[in-house]
Amino acid sequence: MNTFGKNFRITTFGESHGTAVGVVIDGCPVRMGLSEADIQPLLDRRRPGTSPLTSARKESDQIVILSGTFEGLTTGAPIAMLVTNENQHSSDYDALRDLFRPGHADFSYFSKYGIRDHRGGGRSSGRETIGRVAAGAVAMKWLQAQGITVTGSIRAVHGKTSPDEIEKEILAAKERGDSVGGIVECTASGCPAGLGDPVFGKLDALIAGAMMGIGAVKGVEIGDGFSVARRFGSENNDPITTGGFASNHAGGILGGISSGQEIVVRLAVKPTPSIATVQKTRDIHGNEAEISISGRHDPCIVPRIVPVAEAMLALVLADCLLEQMKYR
Amino acid sequence: MNTFGKNFRITTFGESHGTAVGVVIDGCPVRMGLSEADIQPLLDRRRPGTSPLTSARKESDQIVILSGTFEGLTTGAPIAMLVTNENQHSSDYDALRDLFRPGHADFSYFSKYGIRDHRGGGRSSGRETIGRVAAGAVAMKWLQAQGITVTGSIRAVHGKTSPDEIEKEILAAKERGDSVGGIVECTASGCPAGLGDPVFGKLDALIAGAMMGIGAVKGVEIGDGFSVARRFGSENNDPITTGGFASNHAGGILGGISSGQEIVVRLAVKPTPSIATVQKTRDIHGNEAEISISGRHDPCIVPRIVPVAEAMLALVLADCLLEQMKYR
Amino acid sequence: MNTFGKNFRITTFGESHGTAVGVVIDGCPVRMGLSEADIQPLLDRRRPGTSPLTSARKESDQIVILSGTFEGLTTGAPIAMLVTNENQHSSDYDALRDLFRPGHADFSYFSKYGIRDHRGGGRSSGRETIGRVAAGAVAMKWLQAQGITVTGSIRAVHGKTSPDEIEKEILAAKERGDSVGGIVECTASGCPAGLGDPVFGKLDALIAGAMMGIGAVKGVEIGDGFSVARRFGSENNDPITTGGFASNHAGGILGGISSGQEIVVRLAVKPTPSIATVQKTRDIHGNEAEISISGRHDPCIVPRIVPVAEAMLALVLADCLLEQMKYR
Amino acid sequence: MNTFGKNFRITTFGESHGTAVGVVIDGCPVRMGLSEADIQPLLDRRRPGTSPLTSARKESDQIVILSGTFEGLTTGAPIAMLVTNENQHSSDYDALRDLFRPGHADFSYFSKYGIRDHRGGGRSSGRETIGRVAAGAVAMKWLQAQGITVTGSIRAVHGKTSPDEIEKEILAAKERGDSVGGIVECTASGCPAGLGDPVFGKLDALIAGAMMGIGAVKGVEIGDGFSVARRFGSENNDPITTGGFASNHAGGILGGISSGQEIVVRLAVKPTPSIATVQKTRDIHGNEAEISISGRHDPCIVPRIVPVAEAMLALVLADCLLEQMKYR
Repeated sequence: MNTFGKNFRITTFGESHGTAVGVVIDGCPVRMGLSEADIQPLLDRRRPGTSPLTSARKESDQIVILSGTFEGLTTGAPIAMLVTNENQHSSDYDALRDLFRPGHADFSYFSKYGIRDHRGGGRSSGRETIGRVAAGAVAMKWLQAQGITVTGSIRAVHGKTSPDEIEKEILAAKERGDSVGGIVECTASGCPAGLGDPVFGKLDALIAGAMMGIGAVKGVEIGDGFSVARRFGSENNDPITTGGFASNHAGGILGGISSGQEIVVRLAVKPTPSIATVQKTRDIHGNEAEISISGRHDPCIVPRIVPVAEAMLALVLADCLLEQMKYR
Repeated sequence: MNTFGKNFRITTFGESHGTAVGVVIDGCPVRMGLSEADIQPLLDRRRPGTSPLTSARKESDQIVILSGTFEGLTTGAPIAMLVTNENQHSSDYDALRDLFRPGHADFSYFSKYGIRDHRGGGRSSGRETIGRVAAGAVAMKWLQAQGITVTGSIRAVHGKTSPDEIEKEILAAKERGDSVGGIVECTASGCPAGLGDPVFGKLDALIAGAMMGIGAVKGVEIGDGFSVARRFGSENNDPITTGGFASNHAGGILGGISSGQEIVVRLAVKPTPSIATVQKTRDIHGNEAEISISGRHDPCIVPRIVPVAEAMLALVLADCLLEQMKYR
Repeated sequence: MNTFGKNFRITTFGESHGTAVGVVIDGCPVRMGLSEADIQPLLDRRRPGTSPLTSARKESDQIVILSGTFEGLTTGAPIAMLVTNENQHSSDYDALRDLFRPGHADFSYFSKYGIRDHRGGGRSSGRETIGRVAAGAVAMKWLQAQGITVTGSIRAVHGKTSPDEIEKEILAAKERGDSVGGIVECTASGCPAGLGDPVFGKLDALIAGAMMGIGAVKGVEIGDGFSVARRFGSENNDPITTGGFASNHAGGILGGISSGQEIVVRLAVKPTPSIATVQKTRDIHGNEAEISISGRHDPCIVPRIVPVAEAMLALVLADCLLEQMKYR
Repeated sequence: MNTFGKNFRITTFGESHGTAVGVVIDGCPVRMGLSEADIQPLLDRRRPGTSPLTSARKESDQIVILSGTFEGLTTGAPIAMLVTNENQHSSDYDALRDLFRPGHADFSYFSKYGIRDHRGGGRSSGRETIGRVAAGAVAMKWLQAQGITVTGSIRAVHGKTSPDEIEKEILAAKERGDSVGGIVECTASGCPAGLGDPVFGKLDALIAGAMMGIGAVKGVEIGDGFSVARRFGSENNDPITTGGFASNHAGGILGGISSGQEIVVRLAVKPTPSIATVQKTRDIHGNEAEISISGRHDPCIVPRIVPVAEAMLALVLADCLLEQMKYR
C-alpha cells in the first residue's frame, strides 16, 4: 500500500538504487502557486552529506514537477514529482546480498515477498521518504495559506536534550562504529477546532499511524503522552476558561478531534540499525554469519527524521482540513 | 469515518443513550462457525458493574446476530450485530447539557458538528466500543483457527505494577472523587512473518492508528518503544541466529512487516476525565462555570480498555492476514 | 463489499429470510431534520404486494432509526436503520435448496463462497435494496435542500412505452408463468456544474457502477447512450450558447463532470429470472434437474427497480456534492 | 481521483501537453518477469499516426519503467512507468484558449476547477489513457499466466459492421470534416467462477464503472445488454446443464459474480467532438463565438478505444482475482 490519505492523497514510488524516486499527489487544492522552488528547500533539509552528524553520502536530490500545474498554478490534475537517483554505490551492497542485516527490513521483506532488492534496502530505504517530504512541502504551502504552521525539532538523543550534548553523543557513537536513538517532536499551530473524524478517522489515530509508519519510529505520543499513565484526572484534565483552555496536556486533541490548541506529537526513534560493530545474523540459505556494515551511514537518524515527521503531520492535517470543508 | 479495515472491515454505530449500539462486519472469512456464544464472553469482560474497580452501571449488553450466518456458518454476507441500550439514566446528564466537560470530547464535537448528543457522551462514549469488541471476537475466533492468539493485560496503574497495588491505587482515587491512568499491553503470538504492507500499510502503523483511536489512549509503542531513544544500535538490534531471533526489542515488527516473533504493543491510558472533583469550564454560550461530575463513572478506565485493545489488535491482524493471502 | 460511497457512505446488511435488513449511513450532513417519516414513503414505493403488477408478498417493511439523530436532527454520528423481516415463507424454498435457479445468483454465489443461503436468494435477494432505498431517502432529503431533484420512471416494458400497453404486457407474461424486461430512466435536475472527479471518479462512471450493481440491470447509458454509436459529431455535440447548452445529447455530463444540465441515465432491466415455466438446470451435486419456480414473484421487476435506481442516483450525487465542497 | 482498483491499484498522471504522462501500479503480484518489452506493443496499438483512420499526430510513446523491478522481476514495490511527451504543437491550441469546445470537457472542467490547461485538453486528453494501457499490459501479463485472455474489437461504426464498410464510414466523415461513433466489444475468456463481490463490488458494476470512465463512452452493456429489455424470462435465462451453461445471454456474470462463462461487455462510443465543421459556442467571458477545430484529430475514436477498453477490463479482472484469493 503506497498511497496515503483520503482527500489529499499521495502515492510514493522508487527504491534506493533504482532509476528514480517520486510521488504523485492527488486531490491538491487548485489554483495554488507551485514550483520546484517550493519543494527543494525541504528536500535539502532531508538530504544527507550536509553535516558531520549525518551520512557522508552526497545526493543532490533535485526535484522535477512532471504534471499537475499550468502556468505556475495547480489545476486539480495529479502532481507527479520525480528525483532521479545518482551517486549509487550499488556494489557497496554486494557482500550483503544474501545476508539479513539485524534491525533492518531485510528478513521481513524476504519473508513477505520471496524476493528482495538488497541494494541500499531497496524500497525500505530512507530514500523512499523523498516522496513524502516533497508531497509534505506542497501540503505545508497550502496549510500556511490557511494559517497553519508545522514545526519539528530534535527533542533528545540518548537522553540528552541540549544541542551540544546531542552532537557529542552522536559523534561518540559514530566514533565507536555504533549508532544512537532519540526523540523528535512535531507541533502544529493555527489548527482550527474540528479536525478529525470519529471513530476511525480520529486526528490522533491518523497522526499515530502516519508517524509510526516512518522507518525507525517505535513509539508515538500525543500531548503529555506516556506521562498520563502516572497521573490523576484532577491533574490531567485541561480546564476550560472563557479565554480558552488553561493548559494543554491533551496536545490539542480531544475525543480524536482538534480542540484549536497547539497539536503536539513526539516520536521515539531507534538507533540506526546499520553499524560497523560486528553482529550475528544468518543468510537467506539458513547459514550462520557475521556482519559488519561499513559504508556511509547515519550514526543517528533523528535529525533526518525531523523533516519527514513534519511532512507526515502536514499531510494528515491537509487531509483532515479538506475533509472538514464538508461541514462548512 | 466509522469504518475500519480494508479486508476485514467493520462499521460501528450507536450512541451511549440511543436505541442501540452495534457493528457490521464485512469481509469475514466464510464457512466459519459463528453464534452469539462466541461473542458474549468478550463483551462481558468489557462490561462495567462487575467489580468495585469499575463503574457501578449495570448493563447486560446482550449481543444479537442479525445477518451473515446460515445454519450456524458465516456465508460471506455482512454480519450485523446489535446490543440494545438499557439502564440509561439520561436525566443524569441534564445538568451537563450545555457544559463542556474538561478532558472529554464535548468541546471538540461541538466545534466540529455544531450539535452534540450530550447524554453520556453520545457517540464519543465508551459504549461505542461494544461494536469493536463484538467484531474483535469474530476476528479472534478466525485468528485462533490460524494459530494466532491475542492477549491483553494491565501493565501498570499510576506507576504500580502488582495487582494488589493497582487495586489500591484505583480505590484510593475513587475515594477522593478522582481518577487515575495506566498502561495496557497487548501481545499476539503465532503470527507468521510477512504481515503488513509497505510503505503506508505497515503493520506497526496500522496498530498504532488502531490503538490511538481508542478513547483515552495518548501514546502507543511497539516492542521496547520509547526506551529505544536511549539506546545504542549495538544494544537495540535483535541478532538473527539459525534458530531465529536472539531477542525481541523490535516487538515482532521490522520495516513495518511482522517477523514471526511475538508482537508487542503498549498503550498509555489517561485517567478518566469524569471526576467528582470540582473543575473549571465554560458552557456553550461562553459563560464561565464549575462542574463536578457525579454519577457512575470508572475511576480507572485501564481494566476496561484491555478487551478493546485486544479487539483492535485482532482486527488489524485479521485484516493483514487476509491481505497476505494474495501472496500465497 | 457492502459499503458504497466515499463521503456519503452506506453499508447495507441482511438477507431475504434472515432476522432483518438494514443500512448504516456514515458521513451524512449534520443538523438535518430526519425521522422515519422521511424514509417510509420511499420504502412503501419499493414494497411488493401493492398492485397486480408486482409480487403478492405482503411485507410491511417498517423502518426504524437506531442511531445518528438527537432530538430529530442528524449529529454526524452514523445513522443505522433497520427493517425486521416478516412474512417469510422459508419453506417455500425447501425444494430449491440444492438447485441452481437459472438466471439467478445461485450458481455464482455457490462457486464463490462454497455455501449459500438458499432461502429467497439470501443476500442476493431484492430485499437487500431496502437498505439502499432507505439511505437514498436520506440522501434525497439533503439533495432537495440543495435544489436537486431525482426522478425515476418506467420508460418501456418489452418495447411498449404507454402505461396501458405496459400493464398488458406484464399481465400477459404473468398469465403465461413468464416474466418480461424493460427500461428504467432516472433524471436529476438542479445539479450544479462541477460534480465528478477525473479520471477515476467521473460522475458517469460512478453512476454506471451504481446502476449496473442493481440486480437484474444489464445495461446503462447516459444521455443519448447507445444512439451515439450511429451519430456524426456534427449531430451529437451540444452547441453552447450564451444562454446555456442548446441541446442535451450528453445527458448532463461532459468529461465525467456535470455540466449543469439535467442528468439522464437509462437502465436495461432483464426479465425476472423466477418463472413458473419449466427450465433445465442442475443441482449442487452435479445432477441434471428440472425446475419450475412457483411462489409470489414479480412478473416484471421494472416498476420495483424505479425507486432503487432513484436511490442509487441520489447516493452518487450526494457523495459527489460533498466531495465538491472541497473546491468551495 | 486518479487511483483505480482495490488490490491491483493504479494511479495515473500527466496532461496532453505537460512534461510526461505515466502511471504507478501498486499491488502487482511479485516475482513476475516484467520489462518495457511487455508493455510497448500495447502502447503502440493505442498510438495515433499509424493508419489513415486515426489522427496524423506522430507520438513515439516510449515507456520507461522507473521502479518496482529488480533483475527483471517484480518485487512488490510500486511500479512507476513514464512516457515523455513530445511532438506537442501547443500553439495549435492558442486560438482555443478561452473557448469551450462543444462536446469536450472544457466547460465542465472550468466550472469545477476555475482553471483549465487548454492545451490539447490537458488532463482530459486521450493521452491520459497511456497510463491505463501501460498498467493494463502488466495486468494482462499476469492474467495470461492465470489462463485468462482479454480481447477487444470494433463491433460497429455508424451502424456498419464489416471492416470495409467501417473504413468507408470513417474516411467519409473525415473527408467532410466530421466524425463518427461506434461500438466496441471486449471479452474475457478463462475467468474462473466467483469473481466479484456483492453487493457494491459486483463484477458487472466494476466493469461498467471502468468502461463508462473512458472518455467518449456513453453506454455500457453486459451480455445481451439492452436487448434484454424486450425479452421474456423464458428466453433470457441461460439453462444450466451438467456440461455447463447452455447459452450466455448473461455475458458471464450472474448476481454480480462471474459464472465461469466468457465475459462480454460492449461500449457505445460517441463521435469525436473535435470536428472541422463550424459550431456555436461561447468563451470563458460569456461571449458568443464560432469554432472550427482543425488540427490532427481522429475522425473516429473507436479503433483507439479498443486497447483502452481491454486495459480497463484487464485491470478490473486482475483486481477481482487478487480479491478472490482470500477465499482460497
